[in-house]
Amino acid sequence: MALTITRTQYPKTKPQDYSKGFGNILTDHMFLMDYTEAEGWHDPRILPFGALALTPATMCFHYGQEIFEGMKAYRTEDGRLLLFRPMDHMRRLNHSCERICIPQVCEEELLDYLKELLKTDLDWIQDSNVDSIYIRPMIIATEPVFGARPAKDYTCMAMLTPGRPHIPKGPKPVRIYVEKEQARAVRGGTGTAKCAGNYASTFAAQAKAKAQGYTQVLWLDGAERRYVEEMGQMNIFFVIKGELITPDLSGTILDGITRRSLLAIAKDLGYQTVERRISIQEIMTAHADGTLQEAFGCGTGACIAPVGELTYGECHMNIGNGSIGTVTFTLFERLTQIQRGLVPDPYGWTMEV
Amino acid sequence: MALTITRTQYPKTKPQDYSKGFGNILTDHMFLMDYTEAEGWHDPRILPFGALALTPATMCFHYGQEIFEGMKAYRTEDGRLLLFRPMDHMRRLNHSCERICIPQVCEEELLDYLKELLKTDLDWIQDSNVDSIYIRPMIIATEPVFGARPAKDYTCMAMLTPGRPHIPKGPKPVRIYVEKEQARAVRGGTGTAKCAGNYASTFAAQAKAKAQGYTQVLWLDGAERRYVEEMGQMNIFFVIKGELITPDLSGTILDGITRRSLLAIAKDLGYQTVERRISIQEIMTAHADGTLQEAFGCGTGACIAPVGELTYGECHMNIGNGSIGTVTFTLFERLTQIQRGLVPDPYGWTMEV
Ligand SMILES: Cc1ncc(COP(=O)(O)O)c(C=O)c1O
Ligand SMILES: Cc1ncc(COP(=O)(O)O)c(C=O)c1O
Repeated sequence: MALTITRTQYPKTKPQDYSKGFGNILTDHMFLMDYTEAEGWHDPRILPFGALALTPATMCFHYGQEIFEGMKAYRTEDGRLLLFRPMDHMRRLNHSCERICIPQVCEEELLDYLKELLKTDLDWIQDSNVDSIYIRPMIIATEPVFGARPAKDYTCMAMLTPGRPHIPKGPKPVRIYVEKEQARAVRGGTGTAKCAGNYASTFAAQAKAKAQGYTQVLWLDGAERRYVEEMGQMNIFFVIKGELITPDLSGTILDGITRRSLLAIAKDLGYQTVERRISIQEIMTAHADGTLQEAFGCGTGACIAPVGELTYGECHMNIGNGSIGTVTFTLFERLTQIQRGLVPDPYGWTMEV
Repeated sequence: MALTITRTQYPKTKPQDYSKGFGNILTDHMFLMDYTEAEGWHDPRILPFGALALTPATMCFHYGQEIFEGMKAYRTEDGRLLLFRPMDHMRRLNHSCERICIPQVCEEELLDYLKELLKTDLDWIQDSNVDSIYIRPMIIATEPVFGARPAKDYTCMAMLTPGRPHIPKGPKPVRIYVEKEQARAVRGGTGTAKCAGNYASTFAAQAKAKAQGYTQVLWLDGAERRYVEEMGQMNIFFVIKGELITPDLSGTILDGITRRSLLAIAKDLGYQTVERRISIQEIMTAHADGTLQEAFGCGTGACIAPVGELTYGECHMNIGNGSIGTVTFTLFERLTQIQRGLVPDPYGWTMEV
């Protein structure tokens, strides 16, 4: 389909400080594309960033048919722009669509449109204060009458926001709170999809954790509250007796693309890796007997977040000595170097815009 | 807070046929009220029904902070308008807010505004083709920048749609499909809240059931897929050996106001009632030995829906003989008569507008 591009007449003034930019600072343009039963997906277009007109009867407000993706493009030292595993994100977008009955998109086409959006806002990524840009494609149900059934009309949108600043030495460890009461997902639910409802449900526990000084919540399985699942926007890894352990994809957690990439990198660097069920009890035992060496979360937004403290009820587990662990740092460095084109990419993960 | 009312200059032409009206036909006006951290809830207003301007960065599209209610007002034979248990709906709205970190509203005030909305659109309910009106209050996160945390800005909205036509003889039985794979809710999740994400997650199973000729899905518990929970927009009751059984409020199902009302009515009519865990196995056994007499769903939208067939895997349970059962009809008649002011309301459930 032919993409139409309407450029803004009023480009925004770029900020000096991007440190609070994620999600707050948005570039000058957005992508839109509509779906109707009669026409399928149609009218892909890039427009000046602005508002949609939606009445309160719009379906997505009522029944939550809303999915999104989050991927990044990194600027290399020689000024090229590299998307990281974009087709993996397109495939996951369609997986999310399928789970909540949103019509799927053509992955190749959507990716082409997103590249055009990046080119349209290229001046944003060329700013020396920015070295990555986060791309947020999403789809919402826009049929203007409500009823508890899949909608007939949808809008796909995408916008760009400068990524979090890169810290070459690796990020500081964070404090994580293990939630015992509330649950994020259960087998047969929507845990594997990036759908809007999965996030609102986590806010209460997150607010409770934040109020006690924690950065994030670590979720346990919904059925028994025994096995470790994932964090708000990150998957989790543990290093126990030199082995890298991460919960398997049992149908309740997001199949994270950072997780997947780190598993591949770790194997190639010679680490033992295993994807399996791991209980919070096992973590506590490993901590008690001194074999829990490192823990970290990983996701597109934060890349890697070392876990410095893990609290489960009265049990406060300190991990590492306030700094990023060796395995964590090795993986962090290798991944960010591939993403930024600083080392050759043997996996074919990066795609130049 | 002072409510401002702006009346439309262009009233819609009222339809002749309201049979497909639910959610499709909307009246002339809507209610809006905004929340900011600085001002709290403010600026309650009634406006001509129309669109809000929201950019794609609006928080509710991403993280699903969206809740709603559904309640009805019925026209009596002498032309009065009776709201059914409106304060119960206001309280549940605030419960939903709490679960997903939306700031609560003043229940009395919101109810007053909704009454004003009904009065503003009184000509719609006075149409002889309509005998009830469905009121849909809702709140969405409207902060215009995204980040996975509770939003700072919200909008509360409400709109009116003519209710489903009343069938004095009671509705026809429906075919229900018991879902074995997918799950709607789990303990610690959002099952007790009327939040948007709870509905999108049910659409895939519902579509599968619809394709096989079923009207609705009956959900089993998320942890074990053994115990009966509820249906899409309805709670469920069974009549076994003369006893009226409904799943207890164990933290995964909606505390339905129709359910609550029918339990009270049934007790006063001398039926044995019990709220407890009930497994699908127990239902199958009762069906096999002939003690499963009736089953029905109940909710504000449909009032009561007799279950004529319940299918669990290969087991097709026919219930009743294609018509509404005696207990079901007795409860249906008594409830609808109270709602419409045809008999005295000993419970104080109805409130005149
Ligand atoms: C719930 C959840 N888990 C895990 C992740 C990490 O996935 P990815 O590495 O693909 O960004 C994310 C973020 O996208 C997420 O939202
Ligand atoms: C999931 C769910 N269960 C049950 C019900 C029935 O509740 P009520 O009787 O209050 O309408 C509804 C409808 O509101 C619902 O959405």
